[in-house]
Order: sequence, then C-alpha cells, then structure tokens
Amino acid sequence: MDTRRIFSPATVANVSCGFDAIAFALEALGDEMTFRKNESGEVRITRIEGAELPLEVDKNAAGVVAQRMLTAANASFGVDIEIQKKYKPGSGLGSSAASSAGAAFAVNQMLGEPYEPTQLVKFSMLGEEAACGSQIADNVAGAIFGGFVLVRSYHPLELVSIPTPSELFAVVVHPQIEVKTEDARRVLPKQIPVKHAVAQWANVGGLISGLYSGDYDLIGRSLVDVVAEPFRKEFIPHFDLVKEQAIASGALGAGISGSGPSIFALVKGRSQAEKVAKAMEAVYLENPVDHKIYISKIANRGVRII
Amino acid sequence: MDTRRIFSPATVANVSCGFDAIAFALEALGDEMTFRKNESGEVRITRIEGAELPLEVDKNAAGVVAQRMLTAANASFGVDIEIQKKYKPGSGLGSSAASSAGAAFAVNQMLGEPYEPTQLVKFSMLGEEAACGSQIADNVAGAIFGGFVLVRSYHPLELVSIPTPSELFAVVVHPQIEVKTEDARRVLPKQIPVKHAVAQWANVGGLISGLYSGDYDLIGRSLVDVVAEPFRKEFIPHFDLVKEQAIASGALGAGISGSGPSIFALVKGRSQAEKVAKAMEAVYLENPVDHKIYISKIANRGVRII
Repeated sequence: MDTRRIFSPATVANVSCGFDAIAFALEALGDEMTFRKNESGEVRITRIEGAELPLEVDKNAAGVVAQRMLTAANASFGVDIEIQKKYKPGSGLGSSAASSAGAAFAVNQMLGEPYEPTQLVKFSMLGEEAACGSQIADNVAGAIFGGFVLVRSYHPLELVSIPTPSELFAVVVHPQIEVKTEDARRVLPKQIPVKHAVAQWANVGGLISGLYSGDYDLIGRSLVDVVAEPFRKEFIPHFDLVKEQAIASGALGAGISGSGPSIFALVKGRSQAEKVAKAMEAVYLENPVDHKIYISKIANRGVRII
Repeated sequence: MDTRRIFSPATVANVSCGFDAIAFALEALGDEMTFRKNESGEVRITRIEGAELPLEVDKNAAGVVAQRMLTAANASFGVDIEIQKKYKPGSGLGSSAASSAGAAFAVNQMLGEPYEPTQLVKFSMLGEEAACGSQIADNVAGAIFGGFVLVRSYHPLELVSIPTPSELFAVVVHPQIEVKTEDARRVLPKQIPVKHAVAQWANVGGLISGLYSGDYDLIGRSLVDVVAEPFRKEFIPHFDLVKEQAIASGALGAGISGSGPSIFALVKGRSQAEKVAKAMEAVYLENPVDHKIYISKIANRGVRII
C-alpha cells in the first residue's frame, strides 16, 4: 500500500506534578496527515492546512522525521506529506509532537515496521528539536504510545506506559494566545528547594498510584504542581479562576498543559466533564478571551490509521 | 486483655529516588515490645534491652506516643512498656519509628481501636519528634502499614499503600558506625537543580509503576538517587563498592537506607538475595568493617501481635 492516512493525537504534557516526565494523549483532538510514497526518493511537504508552518523539509517537524527515517533505513523511495492541523501550534498541546509522531508512525509502516515504539519516539524527538529547539520526549511519547506515558529516563531513553482508568476524561481550554516554549522555559528557576522537589515527587507517586489503582480522587489530589505552575500561570489569562471553577464544578484537578497556554482538567465520566467544560468556558465568556474548548477521553492508543 | 506483645518492623526509608516520601517494612527484622495496663494511670518504661535509650517517658519515643494517646483518649489506665531492641538505634533502619509505631499500635488496641492507621502514624510522628527532632512520617508509616508506603502529603497527612511483588526481598548491611540524622541532613543542599529533581521524580514514577506491575527490572532501574546519595555516601565505609557488588551479584538496585549508614539492596527471590548478601558482606570482610547483615522479605503487614 503506497498511501497512509493517519490521526495523530494532541497530548497534554507535564500533567501538573509530572513536569518533563509525564504526558497523556487525547482521543478526540489531533492532526490528520496523509503520506504517499513517491519515486523521486525525496521527502516533500505537499500541503499544509490549518496553520502556517514551513514547507521546507528540514524546517518542518514531520519532514525532518521522515527524512531521517528514510535515510536511516536506506530507503529507495521518497514520501509526500500532507498535513491537516486541527488545532493551533503554540497551544501547549503538542502540535509539533503530533506532526513528528505521525510521520514516524506512517513512515515506519511504509518501511515495513522495522522500528519499535521507543525508536519511533527517538525519531520523533528530532522533529521536536527542529520545531522547538530541544529533543523533548514527553509529548511525542504520549502521541506514539497513547494513554499515559512516563519518561523514566533519557539516557537510555525509557518510556513506561501507565494504565488509564476507563472513565477518565480530559477537558482542555485553549485561550487563543501564543506562549512561546522558550519564554515558558526562561521563567522557570534553574534550582528549586528540596522541599518543593519532595512535594512534587510525592505527588508523582500519588498520580501513578492512582492511575494503576483506578483511584480517581487520589489522581485528583496528586494534580499539584509547585515547580512550574506558579511561574507559568502568569502567561495565561485568568488561570487561577479557570482552575478554581473546574474543581468547583467537579474536576479531579486541573493544571497547565505543557508550557501553556492551554489549561487541562481531569474528570471522572463524560457528563461530569461536560459540566466542567461549561464552568471553565464561562470564565472566558464573562472575561472575554477568545478560546477553544475540547472534551476528550484519554486515548487508549497512539497514532492510528484512519 | 491487659497485655500486648508485639513485633514492630524495621523500615527502609527513601528507597533511593523516594527521598522523604517512600518507605518499606522488613519482615525479618524489628523490635519486640510488651505493653501492660497498669492502674497508676501513668506511662512507665519498665525495661529496655538491647540499646541504651532513655527511660524517662517524655524522652522515649514509645513513652511519648503512649502518653499522648492515653491523654487524647482520656484513658483511665496507664501502661507499662518493655522494649527489646533487636537492632541498634542510629542504623538508618527506623529504630525510633519501630518503638513509636509499636506503642501506637498496642495502645490503640488497649483503647479498643478508636484510631485509624493514618491517625496511628500521626501519633507515632510525635515519637519521631522526641527521638530525632522532627515529625517525619516515612518510617512510621512503613512500620504501621507494612509493605511499601508513599507519603503523598503532609498537610493533610496522606499515606498510600503500594503493592509489593511477591518475590521481592531486601538485603540490608549495617556497618556498626553511627551517622547522626542531623549530620546526614546538614550535608544536603537546600536547593537542587530542576534537572536533578526531574530525574528523581521520573524514577519515583518508575519505582511505583514497577511495584504495581510487578516489573522487577523496572524497579531496579528506578533505584537511582541523584539528590541525597551523592552527599550521604561519604559517611558510609566503602559505599560505592558495596553497591557495585550488590548489583554485580544480581541485586535489582541498591542505595542508602534512610540517612544511613545501612545499605539496602532489593532482590528478586530468596536464593538470589543470599548471593547478594554474600557479595555485600564480602566487601566488609575484605576491608574489615564491623557489620550486621539481614535478608528479609518485604513485610506484607505492619506492627503485629506476637
């Protein structure tokens, strides 16, 4: 088969306490991409809809990944890539990760699946580097594996799939402003008090524990971030109020998605998620902020053929 | 019944990555204590064997806990306490925690069990304060709950029992030197690089994940401590060599127990644990260091009646 059409999920990284270590994938939001073998032997970005992204292969996350994989595999064919962005880059929802992971997954299929998921994450990290300047694994790991993923180690890269309780939903509000990853990084201190670090890893332990045991309330209590959120929330309009309203209306917890500006909440059950979404959105209707809002199950799989 | 004879387990706190947040209890090592109701209405430490500890009630960990519980419950009786220490205080194996938790458990029984386990941990923390100067929860939580325990939060106190894979053993070597908890604390930096903190909580996620999924190798790979071990190992004779030999002989991983000087290793299976114990002990035989060595299953329960 010479064509692959895939869905590559949006991802929420950090997940409050799990800064730079935990991410999850969304079932209901992501990009669509089409890959076609070509005889030219080259990678070409033939079309991008929904966002202004570079068509140059070596500047485009998907292009970089596809090129490196074809070279690594010594492939005799090239690939034409069409990208339909379904949500804005700069959202904090792993937009470049979706492109990167989508390319890694599709090109791997075209090559006859020589690569394991962790290797696909490694290739995808090259796309992250092209788009964001550093080889971050969390979002691409979420997009490749689906569900919740822990980046246990970078050297060597080790990813651990964490089970997702079946009734867990995410609500994501995306205020339509741009927060540059580099600004969001710059505002963080380089050193943190040991006390804060201990609080953070105790909550990571609680979150992982709650995911394994299906203890929704424990998941909620563990969604605490004393490391990045206090600094990054300043970039996000009415963050405290949106979070407060999410929890007051029944969310287990809420926090910043990736480096923002999107705000995520985790909720048990779809009907509760709809209430939480309304309450979060109300803040941006009363204090007008242009925004999009999404309700989604946690994806139980990563990139998939559509 | 007017007498309670109990076994209160030794505990390994920190467990490498879980500094100040994770502990586990040993099945085969702990103190024995006897509690007898008396009519005087007072708490009395009537006998201590195996260690030189204060007989004054308000300086003795067990005495402090018993007194506070009787007062809180407005009890009409007093308690005589006998303590048989089976291992040295200052070992890094929760000696004062064993006394504190033992008292909390036994006095609760004599009162008709009005208190939940988490409340017993809170009372036990008063014993820790009397003995060590601060209300640390990890060791007492391990001793009360048994198995692996996570201190998810101090305010409010929340403890999470983590399942223990059935073939998990601990080997503990206790060089017979004293490391004062306050010295072990003083040597730690107050601030740590965010990078190190992220590595630490990624490993906490891995450890908790490995315990839930029974993935022994993941448990082993997660036993990494970049926060305390690099500073505290200087207090422990031949630490690097003992750890190296433990791992070379089949341990999943190894680290400092509590604030030291004991060194623990986690191992899959008893026969492997015996090999690991030999290899660890060999270091202290070749480079003579007076020591004790213990092989134990992880206790699947906390303080118990004997």
